[in-house]
Amino acid sequence: MTVEVHDGEVDIVIAALQPNLTPFFEAWRPFFSRFHVIVVKDPELAAELQIPSGFDVKVYTKSDIQGLLGATSIDFSGHSCRYFGYLVSRKKYVISIDDNCLPAKDPAGVTVDAVTQHMINLKTPATPFFFNTLYDPYRKGADFVRGYPFSLREGVECMLSCGLWLHNADYDPMTHVVKRNQRNTNYVDAVMTVPLGAMLPVSGINVAFNREVLGAVMFPGLRIRKQGNHRWDTLEDIWNGLCAKVVCDSLGYGMKTGLPYVMRSDAEAGKALESLKDWEGVKLMDDVLPFFQSVKLSRNGVTVDGCVKELAGIVREKLAPKNPVFAKAADAMEEWTKLWKSHGAQSA
Amino acid sequence: MTVEVHDGEVDIVIAALQPNLTPFFEAWRPFFSRFHVIVVKDPELAAELQIPSGFDVKVYTKSDIQGLLGATSIDFSGHSCRYFGYLVSRKKYVISIDDNCLPAKDPAGVTVDAVTQHMINLKTPATPFFFNTLYDPYRKGADFVRGYPFSLREGVECMLSCGLWLHNADYDPMTHVVKRNQRNTNYVDAVMTVPLGAMLPVSGINVAFNREVLGAVMFPGLRIRKQGNHRWDTLEDIWNGLCAKVVCDSLGYGMKTGLPYVMRSDAEAGKALESLKDWEGVKLMDDVLPFFQSVKLSRNGVTVDGCVKELAGIVREKLAPKNPVFAKAADAMEEWTKLWKSHGAQSA
Repeated sequence: MTVEVHDGEVDIVIAALQPNLTPFFEAWRPFFSRFHVIVVKDPELAAELQIPSGFDVKVYTKSDIQGLLGATSIDFSGHSCRYFGYLVSRKKYVISIDDNCLPAKDPAGVTVDAVTQHMINLKTPATPFFFNTLYDPYRKGADFVRGYPFSLREGVECMLSCGLWLHNADYDPMTHVVKRNQRNTNYVDAVMTVPLGAMLPVSGINVAFNREVLGAVMFPGLRIRKQGNHRWDTLEDIWNGLCAKVVCDSLGYGMKTGLPYVMRSDAEAGKALESLKDWEGVKLMDDVLPFFQSVKLSRNGVTVDGCVKELAGIVREKLAPKNPVFAKAADAMEEWTKLWKSHGAQSA
Repeated sequence: MTVEVHDGEVDIVIAALQPNLTPFFEAWRPFFSRFHVIVVKDPELAAELQIPSGFDVKVYTKSDIQGLLGATSIDFSGHSCRYFGYLVSRKKYVISIDDNCLPAKDPAGVTVDAVTQHMINLKTPATPFFFNTLYDPYRKGADFVRGYPFSLREGVECMLSCGLWLHNADYDPMTHVVKRNQRNTNYVDAVMTVPLGAMLPVSGINVAFNREVLGAVMFPGLRIRKQGNHRWDTLEDIWNGLCAKVVCDSLGYGMKTGLPYVMRSDAEAGKALESLKDWEGVKLMDDVLPFFQSVKLSRNGVTVDGCVKELAGIVREKLAPKNPVFAKAADAMEEWTKLWKSHGAQSA
């Protein structure tokens, strides 16, 4: 499957959690150089960023965030700084990859163009209403299998593409500590639509989405106590993905997972151990998932913005009594719809 | 992941639609020889079967079917003859592979042991309540990703394993005609649980299941007009898989799809074209899938047998008015629960 990708329809958004971005940019040069790149510097990071020349880059810092938004209840520190990039982008699509990830190689040894693969995922239809056992039916060499209703073979628009990671997989701190020597080496050559009603843990490490349509639900909502700038300390992307899935399911859009892979550098396992004592995500998810599995949005929320407002209200009613972090998440979701209306909902 | 597979817990069930099974058995000898093999000869097939020596085989013919069951409204001709094997098996697990399929090779060139892979799928838990983006979390080198609730990491019992096909994929006759030169070459090295509520087209080409638990729902129910013994003429396995998925969802069991692959020999594309004029499956599936997506079984059906009886009643009420084939399917489902009680519901 080939799709045309125009320079002017994609922004690459990078959260800078470390100052030296030179190896990152050099490795991604063949794939990023023709696109506008938005770098959002972690507001907690003091050192000056190093970015090689030859890119169309715009860097946003703490003062840019404060200058544009003023007082806001949303915390853009750590991994959450990338969401500011989603707000100031003016492109139809956004691709965001963590700054500790480099291009992966496929089993044939070819370097993976993650940008093109994400765009293929977003520009070809999704099939959320029936599972195709041969995975993406639009892929070259594949098709819909016997029994797949012809009325569903047009598919629906795909709004989010969740890519994966070789080497250092995206585990919670407990798993990092227990399996400190385990590395993901299994390159699964498949893209699939996550079925209607099924929830998945979207990782923000390597993700792309249709910003024009989905932007109002791409927020850093759930912030757990003592969140650092390690992925294993965060649930903001998981929460965001669950909200996005509920909204996509409600509006008839699709989400895909699988290719492209990126090569993720080693976590510092010792630090994962330090993270354990403050990590509340384990018990939070046991409340969060049943909530998202059962939540049903009304037919009134016919826009993403309307869906987010409704969902924030249900979070406040059903989850906030269990833990104050959910009340804060509902606040952030409502705040985001305002920020998006003022700053995000514009295209080039 | 390794599991222990005992000779006495698995039957291999083969539907003989052609007389010369020698190449088939010789190719599968390394994997089948230690198990009991049940061969059910298509009642429409006249020629004598050729089966090489060195196997623990029992062949069932038209007279065995008539002798055991007497008058029955279920038609065991063509691909449906294998279901008689499910009835006379006395083992916990059944694996069934079409007689035009040979062992596949994985990308490293190693011949795939489909028996062991099916048994791994059935003997390790399924995870239908949340999608794990790294696929089967119990596989060596994999785990549950960040955000996966710990309360769900035990999984549930897997009752059905749907394997796939290299070379000649399982397409409908239209796709066979249009893409007559396309062969499936993409070996996707993954097993996944199909999420709760998501429906999939289970193919009977390469399938395994827990016969003790699921046997009462493993029937040839939907029979379309002028059904031959080509897969593209049949929907019996698709219907069966949808019924099994609804029952598994209702009872909290899992179903997996993916590995193992088998190598499926070429279809005769000319014959696919001949099949088109009589093939009703295309429009049938447009009624069938919405039905299965929305059907909810009551909490009273706490056994598979109870679920099937209830489902047959709903099929009769909701689908039968649209097309008489659905009334016949409901008849067959009810008949099967009786046959299963009399003949199937016994173990070694």
